[in-house]
Amino acid sequence: MSDSYVHGYDSQEALRLKDQADALVDLLHADTTYPDGSTVLEVGCGVGAQTVTLARRSPGALITAMDRSPSSLLEAERRVAEAGLRNVTFVEADLFTPPFDAASFDHLFVCFVLEHLADPAAALRTLQRLVRPGGSVTVIEGDHGSIVFHPDDPCARSAIASQIALQRDGGGDALIGRRLYPLLSEAGLAGVSVGPRMVYVEGSRPDLAEVFTRRTFTAMIAGVRERVLASGRMNPARFDAGVRALERAAAPDGIFCYTFFKAVGRVLHPAAPDGGAELGQGHAAV
Amino acid sequence: MSDSYVHGYDSQEALRLKDQADALVDLLHADTTYPDGSTVLEVGCGVGAQTVTLARRSPGALITAMDRSPSSLLEAERRVAEAGLRNVTFVEADLFTPPFDAASFDHLFVCFVLEHLADPAAALRTLQRLVRPGGSVTVIEGDHGSIVFHPDDPCARSAIASQIALQRDGGGDALIGRRLYPLLSEAGLAGVSVGPRMVYVEGSRPDLAEVFTRRTFTAMIAGVRERVLASGRMNPARFDAGVRALERAAAPDGIFCYTFFKAVGRVLHPAAPDGGAELGQGHAAV
Repeated sequence: MSDSYVHGYDSQEALRLKDQADALVDLLHADTTYPDGSTVLEVGCGVGAQTVTLARRSPGALITAMDRSPSSLLEAERRVAEAGLRNVTFVEADLFTPPFDAASFDHLFVCFVLEHLADPAAALRTLQRLVRPGGSVTVIEGDHGSIVFHPDDPCARSAIASQIALQRDGGGDALIGRRLYPLLSEAGLAGVSVGPRMVYVEGSRPDLAEVFTRRTFTAMIAGVRERVLASGRMNPARFDAGVRALERAAAPDGIFCYTFFKAVGRVLHPAAPDGGAELGQGHAAV
Repeated sequence: MSDSYVHGYDSQEALRLKDQADALVDLLHADTTYPDGSTVLEVGCGVGAQTVTLARRSPGALITAMDRSPSSLLEAERRVAEAGLRNVTFVEADLFTPPFDAASFDHLFVCFVLEHLADPAAALRTLQRLVRPGGSVTVIEGDHGSIVFHPDDPCARSAIASQIALQRDGGGDALIGRRLYPLLSEAGLAGVSVGPRMVYVEGSRPDLAEVFTRRTFTAMIAGVRERVLASGRMNPARFDAGVRALERAAAPDGIFCYTFFKAVGRVLHPAAPDGGAELGQGHAAV
């Protein structure tokens, strides 16, 4: 087997895996596009994983990506520049003290952020004030309680439960996806619509198993190993067996399912009771 | 409030609930239609809940509905007649000893049956022999492990776990949905394709909450109360609290999600290695 063959094979594999990663991005983001000239605030952009997708799908929108971590913002800026995108401005700020006037933006986008907050309802109330009446709020979160896998394994279930407990100890909620409808409704948003998005990985989709089951979910669980062991919730042997069982679920006769929840609501400020009628075309609908 | 108003209101409510029930039927069955003149074996038709839908959606197909219970068959026959359908024949037989020659049917349909069997793989191997090469096998099952609800409640989780345990004690598997891909593949079916079908019930859908969360799922859990108490798995107070918590999930700010799995595979008998090419139009695809 020549080097070029190996190289060619690797490139093909990389391409296939990229296709699967793109399919996951589509599952979550394909129906989010903002009109040319509209202003969008992305809260908690982190290292820009969603920012690149957002900016690429709405090339005429003006996106402000906010995060409180300077190092994350630098990485996000690098990724956006690398993608050749020029419609993103970066702002360093905490989401509870955003440096913007009320009604400064047409739309708000929040992805994988609320799960880390002790009071996601308060965050939503603060943030939606930044959106003009009639503007939209889009929230995407996962839910670790939605996981279904085969073959079943008690150590894998314990490892997932330990990650959920650690996140709860830190004030977050790994099960927040299911709560988006009441959360957005209670924050005062109107016309809230939620769509579950299930990733279903079976044996006929080995590339999706690689990208999602192994490299995304199992890697995330493996990443909390030291903290789980330090917490005394599991011993090393059981935790490692759990991670192996999750990898086993990515085999040709294994199954792994995970559900994300995507919610969209409309801002109706008290000052503008008829603002709802302004909702523009291109609104992110689920 | 006059009697006629009450009656009118009740009728409207009945219509709305019927719409929701129809939506659930569509979710599971809308993509199953069989060509005119084709022969379909429905195994384990029970009281005909699926038979009516099957016969109505494929009015030109010849359906044989089989069950081992004479009383269930009588009820199924009554329902099918009441629906004005004439394309169904009823046969009393056990699915492990079906009174048919090999390759007697074009298609096989199995819905909510494998979950009750100690050896679903053996059942599939036996049953698929009844289908001609190139014919299809469609299987639909639920998975109680896919349930996500809000607000969370430990008694509700225990009640569901108790039902799963009871079914396991009886030789069945309430978590079989996730296993359809490996089950059909290992039974020798080709081109197996599985589609998860999630029922997502949020506060904006009170009629679906009534039909699915309350009258279907919660009623099923409430129905095993005596067996759960007799098994000693839960005491009456905790079980009843669990049922109330499931009803609570059907409230306007509650959430209930359940995933069904629908699998379709193709029969490729060893005697007809090229049989796969015969697969006709109208094949139930997921």
